[in-house]
Amino acid sequence: MNITFLRLSKVNLLLISSVICIFLSTSVAAQEGRRIEFPIPPRVQGQTDVLQLACEPLDTVRIAFIGLGMRGSDAVERYMNIEGVKVVVLCDPDFWKVDACQKVLLKNGRPAAATYKNASDWKEVCRRKDVDLVYVCTHWQLHTPIAVYAMQHGKHVAIEVPAALTVEDCWKLVNTAEQTRRHCMMLENCCYDFFEMATLNMAQKGFFGEVVHCEAAYIHDLRWLQFDEKDGYWDMWRLRYNTSHTGNPYPTHGLGPVCQILNIHRGDKMDYLVSMSTNQVGMSAYAKEKFGGNSPQAKVDYKLGDMNTTLIRTAKGKTIMLQHDITSPRPYNRIHMVSGTKAFAQKYPVQGIAMEPKAHSFVKKEVMDSLLAVYEHPFAREIGELARKVGGHGGMDFIMDYRLIYCLRHGLPLDEDVYDAAEWSCITELSEQSVLNGSAPVQIPDFTRGDWNKLKGLEFKK
Amino acid sequence: MNITFLRLSKVNLLLISSVICIFLSTSVAAQEGRRIEFPIPPRVQGQTDVLQLACEPLDTVRIAFIGLGMRGSDAVERYMNIEGVKVVVLCDPDFWKVDACQKVLLKNGRPAAATYKNASDWKEVCRRKDVDLVYVCTHWQLHTPIAVYAMQHGKHVAIEVPAALTVEDCWKLVNTAEQTRRHCMMLENCCYDFFEMATLNMAQKGFFGEVVHCEAAYIHDLRWLQFDEKDGYWDMWRLRYNTSHTGNPYPTHGLGPVCQILNIHRGDKMDYLVSMSTNQVGMSAYAKEKFGGNSPQAKVDYKLGDMNTTLIRTAKGKTIMLQHDITSPRPYNRIHMVSGTKAFAQKYPVQGIAMEPKAHSFVKKEVMDSLLAVYEHPFAREIGELARKVGGHGGMDFIMDYRLIYCLRHGLPLDEDVYDAAEWSCITELSEQSVLNGSAPVQIPDFTRGDWNKLKGLEFKK
Repeated sequence: MNITFLRLSKVNLLLISSVICIFLSTSVAAQEGRRIEFPIPPRVQGQTDVLQLACEPLDTVRIAFIGLGMRGSDAVERYMNIEGVKVVVLCDPDFWKVDACQKVLLKNGRPAAATYKNASDWKEVCRRKDVDLVYVCTHWQLHTPIAVYAMQHGKHVAIEVPAALTVEDCWKLVNTAEQTRRHCMMLENCCYDFFEMATLNMAQKGFFGEVVHCEAAYIHDLRWLQFDEKDGYWDMWRLRYNTSHTGNPYPTHGLGPVCQILNIHRGDKMDYLVSMSTNQVGMSAYAKEKFGGNSPQAKVDYKLGDMNTTLIRTAKGKTIMLQHDITSPRPYNRIHMVSGTKAFAQKYPVQGIAMEPKAHSFVKKEVMDSLLAVYEHPFAREIGELARKVGGHGGMDFIMDYRLIYCLRHGLPLDEDVYDAAEWSCITELSEQSVLNGSAPVQIPDFTRGDWNKLKGLEFKK
Repeated sequence: MNITFLRLSKVNLLLISSVICIFLSTSVAAQEGRRIEFPIPPRVQGQTDVLQLACEPLDTVRIAFIGLGMRGSDAVERYMNIEGVKVVVLCDPDFWKVDACQKVLLKNGRPAAATYKNASDWKEVCRRKDVDLVYVCTHWQLHTPIAVYAMQHGKHVAIEVPAALTVEDCWKLVNTAEQTRRHCMMLENCCYDFFEMATLNMAQKGFFGEVVHCEAAYIHDLRWLQFDEKDGYWDMWRLRYNTSHTGNPYPTHGLGPVCQILNIHRGDKMDYLVSMSTNQVGMSAYAKEKFGGNSPQAKVDYKLGDMNTTLIRTAKGKTIMLQHDITSPRPYNRIHMVSGTKAFAQKYPVQGIAMEPKAHSFVKKEVMDSLLAVYEHPFAREIGELARKVGGHGGMDFIMDYRLIYCLRHGLPLDEDVYDAAEWSCITELSEQSVLNGSAPVQIPDFTRGDWNKLKGLEFKK
């Protein structure tokens, strides 16, 4: 083709070129044929969704804590500041952790809790009649088994992140919640961080115009924690998991807040993903340096790529860029970026907000501060001060607990439901499958089984 | 499976789990079977690579400028500050642009250039005997045709970005350069920006340890330029292209510098990519607001998604996250992130460097400044001061021109060769193909046809 400087046309030619383009695109069916799909199990007869599930109000929420490591022991401390709760069970196979939490209760003038110190005790705990809520802070592999068993025994459950490690386990959580009509909340604390809540509020009030693209991450150098037999994770469970898995094993901290902004299963849904990991380099380098080139640690073939990047597309054509890196020496980063047709915000590495008509630079700090004050989330306004005092990642953990108990005591739907838990957690296995298959597209299951467009936006009940 | 708290093992069990994992991964062949591939044309007999191509030194480089819009007219101005060049031709179908550049020559005491003011004149320009270098700053579609024709007529060529819009055109550039033994440099100015050059220097000196992951982007709100018939792009070529194409049409500004850091075709190669775009939202919203809902502009079905994210994996297991967004209201951003096993750097939205053993936060500004001084690139040291004075995106354009002319005058290989041009530009079509096929993986052609591991690292010749 002989291309010249010939002026072809202006605006009207745009119409012609857009018609030509139709021939370039392949059919939707062909696209979907390339996707890896996981089967959607049908609902059993009589089983219905638990969207906006409301249960009987509880005057006092009687809690059993299972798993009293880093997250569990902190939670017990925080609950000393929440009204209308009673800690009835403390359970952990490390007896000194149980004893330490028992002391926290006594120090705060609370009645002693029943204690369980054997590995298999969690079943007995779930069967107790005097428990309303099982609060699960064990290692990852136990989250789903305990949650399912607890719901089957009539308990609400709150489980640490990720709620499940496989798509099959996500379905177990959803099906059990639908069958038992019990709450199953994944404890995604980052949804309650102040900047995240403010940007959610901004999105809901139209500040960003139409939100088109979001970014999220869990970038946190955990090498020492993973490799520390004594002060690290119980039984080195995290390193063990990451030795035999790749993809993004821990997607929810970044993903939760942006899924809330994008109204996932409340008007939109995640449609498919592709995922790519680097080789594993950093863990081996660290092990070699710390333990020596001939150490067992240095010889392990760790599977987890240093950086995993996952791209997610929603049914309504928005995208999420999601990352995981717990190995590289770099500052902590959850990104939390929201890009819309009218404005833009990001939390890391520096908080910045840009808005029309001068979005080519971030607004000055004073303007940002006043925007964050105007759009301060009602929860932050309500209990932000106390939350900052109690702490727990700067206060967000406390707001999360506060809201969980508030909703249970008032018989309200929870802020984060079992579909959130399943959607945010399923990325663990789906991203791994994409990585293991050369970044092939993977369909993201619709855990609502067709009801993702029933609710119109995320609403926090009062 | 009944999961209990049972302590299974510690470090040694890691070895077992890594064996189990083998069963989870699919074969390399299966992965590659999913990829979209473009055929690799064989070399014709006698044709060999042009890696490290050195040509006869030129005492004075006689230049023909074709295309005198925004980039071309700025280039003519800059060349008034470079020794050993003679501007022999000015060519553009807008006669006033030719006249304005001619005035620049005269004002600087240079001899008048031959002028060409017809759309089809570029062929005649390429055939002139008194031209050594054709410098192409036309709209995108003409880059490859002019470059190929110019090389076929014995000229070296320097072409604006992207060098080509299709894989086929990338091969034309490579084959023509290999057959004619002429230089074909894509004018990727961002490789010469100060922070990019410093981080390249750091990478080459081992500051980052092993570089594992990089990020790059072209995020620049160009809505007004795209939609301005009078002061925007000539004949609205950019909007026209973006009306009928999706993916990442303009990948090279971010990609070039990180490919240099990753030694692409100098010890590693880009292996495959996946790409995902949002729906198109922002251009329609802008057109509606600016021209009214019933305007022709508001009715066009623009194909370019607002945000495109492309993930690239290299043969050696590194990844690049590459973005394009020219529609969203947000600050300019090329990211330029380099993440290694020892240190980390990023340029946008704020320059930051983090390094072991305290990489959990960026080093203080004074430390960063001293690091950037220690690792200042030799080019910056040599002509940085003059470059900042002459300008052109803060000086990088001038350093690029200076180096191009320096190498031509000394008979040296150019800093950016035809394989760079092809590799960085081919992402345009490859990303579009991935997007149109539901983010399917696409093989990235090896334009060196097997020689990507021949050179050991990028070296700038002196």
